Amino acid sequence: MKTPSNYLTIRITLIFLIIAGSLNAQDINRIVKNDYSRSSDRKILHIPDIQGYETLKGDFHMHTVFSDGHVWPESRVMEAWREGLDVIAITDHIEYRPHKDHIVSDHNSAYEVAREKALAQNIILLRGTEITRDMPPGHFNALFIDDVNPIENEDPMKQLEEAARQGAFILWNHPGWASQQPDSTIWWDMHTEILDNGWMHGVEVSNSGEWYPIVLDWCREKELTVFSNSDIHAAIDFDYDLSLANAHRPMTLVFAKDRSQTGVKEALFSRRTLGFFGNQLVGPENLILDLFNASVIVNTPFMESERKGKKVKHIELENPTDLTFILVKDEENGKNKDLIELNPHSEIIIIIPANEDTANYRLVNCWSGSNDHPVVRF
Amino acid sequence: MKTPSNYLTIRITLIFLIIAGSLNAQDINRIVKNDYSRSSDRKILHIPDIQGYETLKGDFHMHTVFSDGHVWPESRVMEAWREGLDVIAITDHIEYRPHKDHIVSDHNSAYEVAREKALAQNIILLRGTEITRDMPPGHFNALFIDDVNPIENEDPMKQLEEAARQGAFILWNHPGWASQQPDSTIWWDMHTEILDNGWMHGVEVSNSGEWYPIVLDWCREKELTVFSNSDIHAAIDFDYDLSLANAHRPMTLVFAKDRSQTGVKEALFSRRTLGFFGNQLVGPENLILDLFNASVIVNTPFMESERKGKKVKHIELENPTDLTFILVKDEENGKNKDLIELNPHSEIIIIIPANEDTANYRLVNCWSGSNDHPVVRF
Amino acid sequence: MKTPSNYLTIRITLIFLIIAGSLNAQDINRIVKNDYSRSSDRKILHIPDIQGYETLKGDFHMHTVFSDGHVWPESRVMEAWREGLDVIAITDHIEYRPHKDHIVSDHNSAYEVAREKALAQNIILLRGTEITRDMPPGHFNALFIDDVNPIENEDPMKQLEEAARQGAFILWNHPGWASQQPDSTIWWDMHTEILDNGWMHGVEVSNSGEWYPIVLDWCREKELTVFSNSDIHAAIDFDYDLSLANAHRPMTLVFAKDRSQTGVKEALFSRRTLGFFGNQLVGPENLILDLFNASVIVNTPFMESERKGKKVKHIELENPTDLTFILVKDEENGKNKDLIELNPHSEIIIIIPANEDTANYRLVNCWSGSNDHPVVRF
Amino acid sequence: MKTPSNYLTIRITLIFLIIAGSLNAQDINRIVKNDYSRSSDRKILHIPDIQGYETLKGDFHMHTVFSDGHVWPESRVMEAWREGLDVIAITDHIEYRPHKDHIVSDHNSAYEVAREKALAQNIILLRGTEITRDMPPGHFNALFIDDVNPIENEDPMKQLEEAARQGAFILWNHPGWASQQPDSTIWWDMHTEILDNGWMHGVEVSNSGEWYPIVLDWCREKELTVFSNSDIHAAIDFDYDLSLANAHRPMTLVFAKDRSQTGVKEALFSRRTLGFFGNQLVGPENLILDLFNASVIVNTPFMESERKGKKVKHIELENPTDLTFILVKDEENGKNKDLIELNPHSEIIIIIPANEDTANYRLVNCWSGSNDHPVVRF
Repeated sequence: MKTPSNYLTIRITLIFLIIAGSLNAQDINRIVKNDYSRSSDRKILHIPDIQGYETLKGDFHMHTVFSDGHVWPESRVMEAWREGLDVIAITDHIEYRPHKDHIVSDHNSAYEVAREKALAQNIILLRGTEITRDMPPGHFNALFIDDVNPIENEDPMKQLEEAARQGAFILWNHPGWASQQPDSTIWWDMHTEILDNGWMHGVEVSNSGEWYPIVLDWCREKELTVFSNSDIHAAIDFDYDLSLANAHRPMTLVFAKDRSQTGVKEALFSRRTLGFFGNQLVGPENLILDLFNASVIVNTPFMESERKGKKVKHIELENPTDLTFILVKDEENGKNKDLIELNPHSEIIIIIPANEDTANYRLVNCWSGSNDHPVVRF
Repeated sequence: MKTPSNYLTIRITLIFLIIAGSLNAQDINRIVKNDYSRSSDRKILHIPDIQGYETLKGDFHMHTVFSDGHVWPESRVMEAWREGLDVIAITDHIEYRPHKDHIVSDHNSAYEVAREKALAQNIILLRGTEITRDMPPGHFNALFIDDVNPIENEDPMKQLEEAARQGAFILWNHPGWASQQPDSTIWWDMHTEILDNGWMHGVEVSNSGEWYPIVLDWCREKELTVFSNSDIHAAIDFDYDLSLANAHRPMTLVFAKDRSQTGVKEALFSRRTLGFFGNQLVGPENLILDLFNASVIVNTPFMESERKGKKVKHIELENPTDLTFILVKDEENGKNKDLIELNPHSEIIIIIPANEDTANYRLVNCWSGSNDHPVVRF
Repeated sequence: MKTPSNYLTIRITLIFLIIAGSLNAQDINRIVKNDYSRSSDRKILHIPDIQGYETLKGDFHMHTVFSDGHVWPESRVMEAWREGLDVIAITDHIEYRPHKDHIVSDHNSAYEVAREKALAQNIILLRGTEITRDMPPGHFNALFIDDVNPIENEDPMKQLEEAARQGAFILWNHPGWASQQPDSTIWWDMHTEILDNGWMHGVEVSNSGEWYPIVLDWCREKELTVFSNSDIHAAIDFDYDLSLANAHRPMTLVFAKDRSQTGVKEALFSRRTLGFFGNQLVGPENLILDLFNASVIVNTPFMESERKGKKVKHIELENPTDLTFILVKDEENGKNKDLIELNPHSEIIIIIPANEDTANYRLVNCWSGSNDHPVVRF
Repeated sequence: MKTPSNYLTIRITLIFLIIAGSLNAQDINRIVKNDYSRSSDRKILHIPDIQGYETLKGDFHMHTVFSDGHVWPESRVMEAWREGLDVIAITDHIEYRPHKDHIVSDHNSAYEVAREKALAQNIILLRGTEITRDMPPGHFNALFIDDVNPIENEDPMKQLEEAARQGAFILWNHPGWASQQPDSTIWWDMHTEILDNGWMHGVEVSNSGEWYPIVLDWCREKELTVFSNSDIHAAIDFDYDLSLANAHRPMTLVFAKDRSQTGVKEALFSRRTLGFFGNQLVGPENLILDLFNASVIVNTPFMESERKGKKVKHIELENPTDLTFILVKDEENGKNKDLIELNPHSEIIIIIPANEDTANYRLVNCWSGSNDHPVVRF
């Protein structure tokens, strides 16, 4: 009858079955066990496509042993594959190669070493590099280039010019990095010059553990593409605990016409990206709203009832994605009771006045400017 | 009064506090977030010392980009430090260096690159190498050597001779590896010759995901030291999910007179080691028993009662360590009801006849031979 | 430049931000913290609908304090809501009510206490009960009844008759329960009589931690509906660690024309159910195949290459659901290398001969009979 | 040679072994599986004893179905046992019993129902109750009483008087509870009267998800014992995710002369307690310091080196407990770089000037007053 006295019955565990098996007929030559081993498959990141575009997951900034990273280039492909990314760029420093006593290479080697693995894993691998200078102008990634070697040059402006000549997409990295801009995140005259020359197309709004809200405003004003990149140097799992619920590396969502290098390039130049780090989404308002609408399902009310003498309706909101949305009613001041938290793969029930057809909610974990949250209506 | 109607109150979360803060006075230059980041500390592995010896945690087989591994040598030190290991050997292949087009080194380089980091993290780093030959004789690790380079030689016997000449401790790696001994785990004549020459002192009873019970018998018969090593090539967290409860890499426990390279060497040559992989401990019976006795606390009975007309006493067993012990009463046949599972950092209550002073239990997850479980009495 | 020397930089943690905040302007009246608290939302269980039917998740066997369970009836609704279930039945024992000294009720009380909560959470709550007798005939659940009280009777046959008179769907519970059928899982003459009378419509193929493969054969032969139920007595989280990857309670998948009590009843009488426990799916072959086809995406090959002189193609298989499918090529003998493991929310790459159009795979973690695995072709 | 091409080798999993076994010789009568089931053992909470006292873990505030809780009283014992608690009090409301239509009891029943289970699990179970009144005076727990029934009375002062007459230890619950003291946490005249009458001995500084720093000051000024209690109504695992790293319910640490009801009573009346919630410890400074000193091991420096031209020494700090300590150098202003985070079961390395013998550190996650952190010196 499975009464409370069963509480302490010792579990009949799998462990036992295995032991019992061993006792009877153990293979004494070789036993395969794989304790605590990870499965070697690719995680499906549930982030929906939006109208007309495929949503690709990208990381456009990472290092290998060929500059100051700690892993072999192929590892970057395998990590990306496992985590469900679609597109990556290996962007080793041109100017900083502390392992060069033991690593013999030109600046294309990391890409070339990883390329075959990327093909085999169906990962889009971009040839890239990081131009690594003091501030100003700081660090820049050049992507979609043909040959990194000619970009080595003492003059940073010449470097950017050469990258641009190769048709590169160029982004300014970690503009608010504490080591280079300790006090505040400044746009220097030199950046205006670079922008005017057509040598800067995007900027990192977030890099590893930092994010710079003011840079979102720059993106709007100066028509720059938004990036959130990992800038990973160690093995990815050394820095991130990806076993935590909803964990993922900082990444850039790319809304592309197709899943190809060409598709990514067109999307980046067309500024169709969002930064995705922690539970936050940052970038152009319309893309955030499109993604919210593609993600969240507002069901028809399943019940009506009365609360404090007023008719209310009960509604299920579903979020079957790996994104998080936190909503606050627009007219209200963010007091706790009005917070609606739509966690990944979760559903909640909200109760609203029966005569309320639609209402506005601010997405307080999403940012379209340093002080702006997109507003959804449903 | 916190009645059931509170069930659905939306949580007042930290997330809210942070958002609320942001709304009021967000720093728009730089926000530090570190979502999903791992803390950079060292795990304390609770494995007690035994009478007269410190219990050191070791891994004597691992690779870096200097042979066919995927990480820079310093990463091996940092991984070991994090996981609570005390001693490691980097043992890159002499004969197999697939990255040599880009890596310029002699056979001591990996050790030399990692040495400073090992000092800074207080990790004992042994100079080692893997002699990598077809079967027989297969692969051998040489540890505590002065110079790897002279060990490069076409003749494996000459290699072992040179290692021995340098005072090396030499172990045979993965003797039952499926690729080299697909059908059964065989001791070849060549191994007898090597042993007789004094060129083999230990052997891997377990390597990565494989374990070879018959090799435990060899250790007893031929007086070889027991090893369980990871043979890790990727970043450790790529292959193992160390966030799982009780997870750890395969390791060799070393019972040393002190925590030093000398202490480790003396202990290895004196055969004071146990293999620890999954929840299993394998090796000399006396060491397993010493470790059990240092780990498990049998409290005095806290209660007496009657069960089916017979007096019984209730006893708490405590296991405040990271080890697991699974016990079966010796006279019984391993039926489930008699299984006692002492999980890490756990306590259970057992109920035994009041007149029973001591009883024998087999440690069914510990092995002193291919068919032998140590028996404890309490 | 984020060099290796950054390895040990102490994390700038959220903890710090909060502390720093506290130091400056802590509210000394009340601070809300919610450490380790769980979010109060409903998990979306990703199990797709199949052609023409909604896939509902059900548990048709559970207890409360009104018999020998440990929780108040409303808790069963909240647990089910959280875990993403759609339909439950509270089935307290008629004959075994160990708490009756303190609980005053008739046999409908548990249902009545929970009903309002079920409405508020949009959970379909069935009125049910467990007829609790020695073997034969053992225990039976009656569902969809109007009034439990008249089912109290000394004669089990009269109990079943009364339940049937009320239009009940009746299932035999845990037919292989070790306490009642210790040696083998037997179908008694009395069960034939019950079946012939039309008083048995389904049977538990799995109950809590047990499953009975032979009962799957009975389901086929005797046209019985397949069930897998939790029979939970404690709080669900006391017995199950639902924080583990892919964890869920044992449940019965119901393929219903709509999400309503009527829909469930029609589906149960029409035998459209599967048992889902651990990573296993058991029940009618056609339903397993429909569910596989609704779950798994076989992409067109993304690459061709050569392996050992033969052309092969590389194909991504996606499983964006919470189900697991483990496949073995039909003609082969289950040797490890041929095992294809499609974990939840995962994707793998398989490599097959370029000229192979389709192949048969057995779903070795799915069972349509005690010895039968459905075969898929793709 | 375990080259990178092994990356994608499909895991040989335990799953396979089980399947393979099943294929050959499955028991078709009954298979035991226990997927996702929890082990039924008691967690050892590593919190060290301090000089002269045993450190007991207590929770002195919880509810059952006998008032407005959701579980049967025995469940409170089992939960406490599992989590490593030593002492609990079931404190059902006298005045609020929403289940009374179905629960027939006097006010001692919950205690009496749970007592036998407490004996069997070696948990110290106190007879208690919650006097449940509007503010003032709010809610009070009376512990160590002989009979709850006479405490039922319309006049709260009479209730407290009767409890005191029975020798009760009386604490004021959640003095800053938002529902009763929404704006600030006020000490009313009535509380002075109660205190002066000798009817209040302790107070909750923390209750479930709230903590009230100002109440720590009251404890110092008015010589009250510090409590942190769960006030749990649901099953504990419904409200807390105890599978998270370092998770535990809010609890009160009791420093007792022995592990007995008498020992606990003496310790409570002697004010030897600390509140422990999240990673915070709050209460008398001397107890926090004693606990810090019993927990943290400062090793002798293992290395000296130079940093920026100055000699420094490298020291390992070990914290082999389940407590957390976060330290900031006393003279400094809490800037991030000086934060030392000693997580549970972790070790860190600090680097300090070679000529620095000792330094002062504030324990910023520990509180001895609403604005006071104890300072340690090492």
